[in-house]
Amino acid sequence: MQDKHQVSAEDSLIARYFKPLATDPGALGLVDDAAVLSSSGDDIVITTDAVVEGVHYLATDPPDTIARKALRVNLSDLAAKGATPAGFVLTLALRSKEDRWLRPFADALGEDARSFACPLLGGDTVSTPGPQMISITAFGRVPKGRMVGRTGARPGDRILVTGTIGDAALGLDVLTGGAMAAMLASDQVAQDYLIDRYRVPRPRNALAAAVLAHASAAMDVSDGLAGDLAKLCAASGVSAVVEAHRVPLSAAAAVAISAVGLEKLVSGGDDYEVLCAVPEARCAHFVREANQAGVAVAAIGTVIVGQQAPRWTDAQGRDITLRRLSYSHF
Amino acid sequence: MQDKHQVSAEDSLIARYFKPLATDPGALGLVDDAAVLSSSGDDIVITTDAVVEGVHYLATDPPDTIARKALRVNLSDLAAKGATPAGFVLTLALRSKEDRWLRPFADALGEDARSFACPLLGGDTVSTPGPQMISITAFGRVPKGRMVGRTGARPGDRILVTGTIGDAALGLDVLTGGAMAAMLASDQVAQDYLIDRYRVPRPRNALAAAVLAHASAAMDVSDGLAGDLAKLCAASGVSAVVEAHRVPLSAAAAVAISAVGLEKLVSGGDDYEVLCAVPEARCAHFVREANQAGVAVAAIGTVIVGQQAPRWTDAQGRDITLRRLSYSHF
Repeated sequence: MQDKHQVSAEDSLIARYFKPLATDPGALGLVDDAAVLSSSGDDIVITTDAVVEGVHYLATDPPDTIARKALRVNLSDLAAKGATPAGFVLTLALRSKEDRWLRPFADALGEDARSFACPLLGGDTVSTPGPQMISITAFGRVPKGRMVGRTGARPGDRILVTGTIGDAALGLDVLTGGAMAAMLASDQVAQDYLIDRYRVPRPRNALAAAVLAHASAAMDVSDGLAGDLAKLCAASGVSAVVEAHRVPLSAAAAVAISAVGLEKLVSGGDDYEVLCAVPEARCAHFVREANQAGVAVAAIGTVIVGQQAPRWTDAQGRDITLRRLSYSHF
Repeated sequence: MQDKHQVSAEDSLIARYFKPLATDPGALGLVDDAAVLSSSGDDIVITTDAVVEGVHYLATDPPDTIARKALRVNLSDLAAKGATPAGFVLTLALRSKEDRWLRPFADALGEDARSFACPLLGGDTVSTPGPQMISITAFGRVPKGRMVGRTGARPGDRILVTGTIGDAALGLDVLTGGAMAAMLASDQVAQDYLIDRYRVPRPRNALAAAVLAHASAAMDVSDGLAGDLAKLCAASGVSAVVEAHRVPLSAAAAVAISAVGLEKLVSGGDDYEVLCAVPEARCAHFVREANQAGVAVAAIGTVIVGQQAPRWTDAQGRDITLRRLSYSHF
């Protein structure tokens, strides 16, 4: 019946590619302009992050990895807030509607939506003459008043970070023919590992319950560990000491650090790991629950009194000066 | 203290322009990656709409009107769903961070956020080498299970629409040097009126309570009255008869229709009026409450049994054939 109503190309694009993802009743099958998120006294945590072609991903990246990255950078924020995913809305600014791009994009988005239990609730598809852009707003739930913020870190808290740091920045370096590409020319396995870390974040949603239960403050590492820790400390009105040699590195990054230096790893973007402050007394619980959830965590430093930027030290306790802390868009 | 932490240019942009808008406690002063929307059993209505330079607005449009349009197209969706605004998140894809663009943009956005009681809760600012784009996801509240959808129109319901139709399409025609520009060359007042209607929608949030109380189905008119009514009918499994001469027109549009034809007005985008179906028995209440809210409404037709596209008739009851129903992005 639909074509009797002269359904627009935009509507058929949505029906064809995205309606199968809209499995939640609140999505209303994407036939409405709006979606419904029911609530029963929980707080709704909202996060929004966009990825732009040529800025957050490369035009040559496969569409399935672009889809996963677009959703996962938002899932990573929910994980760091201790929130359980509830759904997301998608704004897709497209130059064209080629099936060979949209099909793998939508399929991968659907797979991630299912595996992270974060269904598509609605969206908007617009045309752009410029670079493609995917903007996602994702929703999670936490018990009322319990969202883990950035302001609760207290002197004495341990600073922990998940996974490994710097791989994504190195992967981008490989993809763009930087120093790493030459260095790893004969090591395809390491190259592939780093590229995958750049293209497909591993958001730590399995850790959300432990973050909610134990962290005094948390955020995800998206713009560089050094800068993001500085932001967390500033928001909490504290400082920190970080032992650089405790920053968890992959085997590939451990080899690279001698060539590219620490700063490249801790100021590069796209890690999408969880950075949190945990009171000393809760650290053992947090680490045990992280292990049970299958998420590696490393204690890298301690929150201290002060207003100054976090201090970085080497294995001998000597200060390390970082000139650059973060990736910045401007 | 902040610059001791080497706050990034992106963070200072957000602090400078957008933090003053983040007055809601759930925005956490924009220092977090996430925002909180508290709930107490109400349903959260979510809508997302993006505007792209060169597609939804012109690069030459003033930044204050671009800001208002970006927010108001979303407020319009909330109004049509019977929802009370609760807040919004903003993704801003910028080519540059010129104060002369950002200052009026942020000021106007703040004014609208205040006047529509829809505070900024969070956002993301990214750089793009292409056209600027503003993507907003807005939130509203309705009592549980009460969101006014598109699927409830029933045969016998009256079809009503707010305000006037077609002005924005004519305004775009004036701005782009189309037929209207020549026709209205000597009538600056009419030109200005139409241009303003294109640039600054008037979302009918004052009507939301009446929509919630009386409408069986509703949506906002964003892609053309004819196409949007066809969508509403398709979603409800009904058809409709529309009396074209009852479609409310501004004085300028009433003059223009003889030159540009009905189709231009009812298939043009950007009206941002509310289109709804109201059971006959509730029509008088709906119209009275609309009048009390200061919103003009016009009854333009009736829902009928059927699967075919809505029929349009002239004042003599003769069928009118519309070849084009909507604006489409693709």
